[in-house]
Amino acid sequence: MIEKIKFKQDKPIIFITNDDSVHSKGIAELINSVAHLGQVVVVAPDVVRSGSSSAITHGVGLELKLLCSQDDLYIFSCSGTPVDCVKLAFFTLFDKQLPHIVLSGINHGSNASVNSLYSATVGAAMEGCVNNISSIAFSLCDHADDADFSNTLPHVVAMVEKVLKDPLPKGTFLNVNFPKGVVQGLKFVRQADARWSEEYDKTFEKGTTQYWLAGYFDNREPNAVDTDEWALSSGLGSVVPVKIDMTDYDWLENNCLK
Amino acid sequence: MIEKIKFKQDKPIIFITNDDSVHSKGIAELINSVAHLGQVVVVAPDVVRSGSSSAITHGVGLELKLLCSQDDLYIFSCSGTPVDCVKLAFFTLFDKQLPHIVLSGINHGSNASVNSLYSATVGAAMEGCVNNISSIAFSLCDHADDADFSNTLPHVVAMVEKVLKDPLPKGTFLNVNFPKGVVQGLKFVRQADARWSEEYDKTFEKGTTQYWLAGYFDNREPNAVDTDEWALSSGLGSVVPVKIDMTDYDWLENNCLK
Repeated sequence: MIEKIKFKQDKPIIFITNDDSVHSKGIAELINSVAHLGQVVVVAPDVVRSGSSSAITHGVGLELKLLCSQDDLYIFSCSGTPVDCVKLAFFTLFDKQLPHIVLSGINHGSNASVNSLYSATVGAAMEGCVNNISSIAFSLCDHADDADFSNTLPHVVAMVEKVLKDPLPKGTFLNVNFPKGVVQGLKFVRQADARWSEEYDKTFEKGTTQYWLAGYFDNREPNAVDTDEWALSSGLGSVVPVKIDMTDYDWLENNCLK
Repeated sequence: MIEKIKFKQDKPIIFITNDDSVHSKGIAELINSVAHLGQVVVVAPDVVRSGSSSAITHGVGLELKLLCSQDDLYIFSCSGTPVDCVKLAFFTLFDKQLPHIVLSGINHGSNASVNSLYSATVGAAMEGCVNNISSIAFSLCDHADDADFSNTLPHVVAMVEKVLKDPLPKGTFLNVNFPKGVVQGLKFVRQADARWSEEYDKTFEKGTTQYWLAGYFDNREPNAVDTDEWALSSGLGSVVPVKIDMTDYDWLENNCLK
């Protein structure tokens, strides 16, 4: 039986999730790097849930398993998506006091530009934001299971310290991506206009064609110098402030209401 | 073997998908209501995929099955998510000419305000928009399998005719919701600030607690008169123009770069 956690009043509560699963290197590195900053609660998927966006599970029962409990650190696995992890954690583990900050990642692979739409690392941070909690999605542009996060971590810690001290405005969260290798600084930028040109790989089995997602990335503004893709290609970490209110106010004002 | 469709040059191409599956009443009503406006290609999930947001399938092969082919109407089922349906259709069925419009729905149930984040009806329209195609998500605030779409359809047809004639601006799509019953008109509005207060139902099986998504809807601005939730509660269809660039430019300008 999972019971609500009794938190100390003198230390901030840091909630961590991801989409590469609770067993990934990226989440372990994130936990270790910020553990000294507060009380840490981790609820992350029991299996890889990459590309599940803000998907939620309904009609299926979810399970929560305590993997580790020691001073100021609780780690659970959850059978749901990253957004399920956030929702279920808030419902089961927290009482009146929700966490002070939601961290998602560190993802193995880029979640810049259009990738943010498909990313459940980003989806989980968005869910934190929906609940009015300062939330940050962290990703490293390296898909390898044993990716090297050492250049990334100092920037992660500095950003978490900053946001704990100076919370984000309501309705906005941060989507942070780091280049592979040396990080020459951070840059606040906008989301690049990009898409995947979806070239599927085909296989033929038992008279049926199977299509396997492959594709190549198409940055539609390769010459822009103010986008996340530009920052990353310049060796900079990209920080995009993302709004959960996606209303196009310009269009609303200029084309609809007048 | 699925081959690319040979389209006529004199009629617009209308692509339709949804998240309630190709077998739902809502998509059948949508197909029937707009079939006279052009050449219609439907690729929709073979099973219910509600709440899958912009999730994509990778590491698993997808299948596409032709269910129906007659004059200017092609209906396929797909084993993937709604976003997979859009991507796979564009890759397999369309050549240089992508469709003129992407329609998603008509969903059984509201996708207004925060629901748009979790909705794959909205996710599919967003994917059309990522590919620079005018896209509209349609939903009716009635979850019943046999929901009555008769009051909704005249507005759907009028809107599709309008957008075929006057395409949407690049990077913006429409999230359209209809109240149950009489529709007293349409209103262009913004996305309401809302969330689900996630009360899970619990069951106990074999020593394990299972959590089932339930929850109640919490409109955090019940007195606003310019939101989608307000329009719907007033008997109006709500039309929210949604941007796929979610960058918070105000914050970027005022808090980061200066």
